[in-house]
Amino acid sequence: MVRAKGEERRAEILRATLEVIAERGYRGATLGAVAERVGLTQQGLLHYFPTKEALLVALLAERDQWDAIPGDSWRLDLLSSLVDYNAMRPGVVQTFSALLGESVTEAHPARDFFTRRYVVVRGNMASVLRTAYGERLPSGLTPEQAGTLMVAVMDGLQYQWLLDPEAVDMSAAFRDFLHLLEGADAERPKT
Amino acid sequence: MVRAKGEERRAEILRATLEVIAERGYRGATLGAVAERVGLTQQGLLHYFPTKEALLVALLAERDQWDAIPGDSWRLDLLSSLVDYNAMRPGVVQTFSALLGESVTEAHPARDFFTRRYVVVRGNMASVLRTAYGERLPSGLTPEQAGTLMVAVMDGLQYQWLLDPEAVDMSAAFRDFLHLLEGADAERPKT
Repeated sequence: MVRAKGEERRAEILRATLEVIAERGYRGATLGAVAERVGLTQQGLLHYFPTKEALLVALLAERDQWDAIPGDSWRLDLLSSLVDYNAMRPGVVQTFSALLGESVTEAHPARDFFTRRYVVVRGNMASVLRTAYGERLPSGLTPEQAGTLMVAVMDGLQYQWLLDPEAVDMSAAFRDFLHLLEGADAERPKT
Repeated sequence: MVRAKGEERRAEILRATLEVIAERGYRGATLGAVAERVGLTQQGLLHYFPTKEALLVALLAERDQWDAIPGDSWRLDLLSSLVDYNAMRPGVVQTFSALLGESVTEAHPARDFFTRRYVVVRGNMASVLRTAYGERLPSGLTPEQAGTLMVAVMDGLQYQWLLDPEAVDMSAAFRDFLHLLEGADAERPKT
């Protein structure tokens, strides 16, 4: 499918935004740096996105389109595949880990996005776990309790991995967590 | 003990820095904002800390002094107390969660601090778990494997809690994780 020229340009600008945020965070990013990366003047960039916040909002919307929140009908092993996939794209993980970190500061424009996203993600994780285990996991935890921990483990591992990829194998560590959910008597999961 | 006036002033400046970073992140923080909060001119502030980075380095050193990394001789239940304590000081947690997030961006001055800190924290967590469980946890995980997950859970829960304190009970969730480590057959831990 051929995209209109304007749309191509927008996509190019969003890719550049992703990179600039990975390098400097959102608060450190400037419209000038994004413009420079795509060979536009700052005035030219404002034609596509009138403010820096508009750029961020477009980037977050784009993420929701391409990078679906794990659905409530996913199987547990698909979550491992998602973590494996993330381990192959440090740039994207870096951008969103930086944004998540910044989002807890006052009046950050990504704060609502993350707050709403986590409500949905926790709910979906609980559904996935309920399908796998019913109302109680082997440990006695409810799917909701374990779902909150699962989201925390995924996020927390990303920071450790981004800081020290030689020391932390994010995929293996996430499988360890799934094994922990299985309980003491389970076989090690097949890999 | 009476502290010299200069030292008091430095402590006051560091408290203001903590607040400004909680509000705006490190990249969004300015020396002007810190100076204003303590009633100094920017020139006056530079007398105590010559650069913004020097302020950050002093803040991180201060943290290591007051807010010890959990030691390798801690018992597991002290970790719960640490999480309970953190739940009572959202400002400090907010500052360090924002800094951790920013630290994964390029050439961030807190990156080395966090990278080194995590090596030590993961090692200490593994020691605590080894003392509690020996070479294998009930799930079959090694203390090192479980230690990495424990650090991830603590960090990940902090983001969910900061974004949505009504929805996420960080202390209860961390106890759920300790219960998960106990394995399927264990009683719920005494609280």
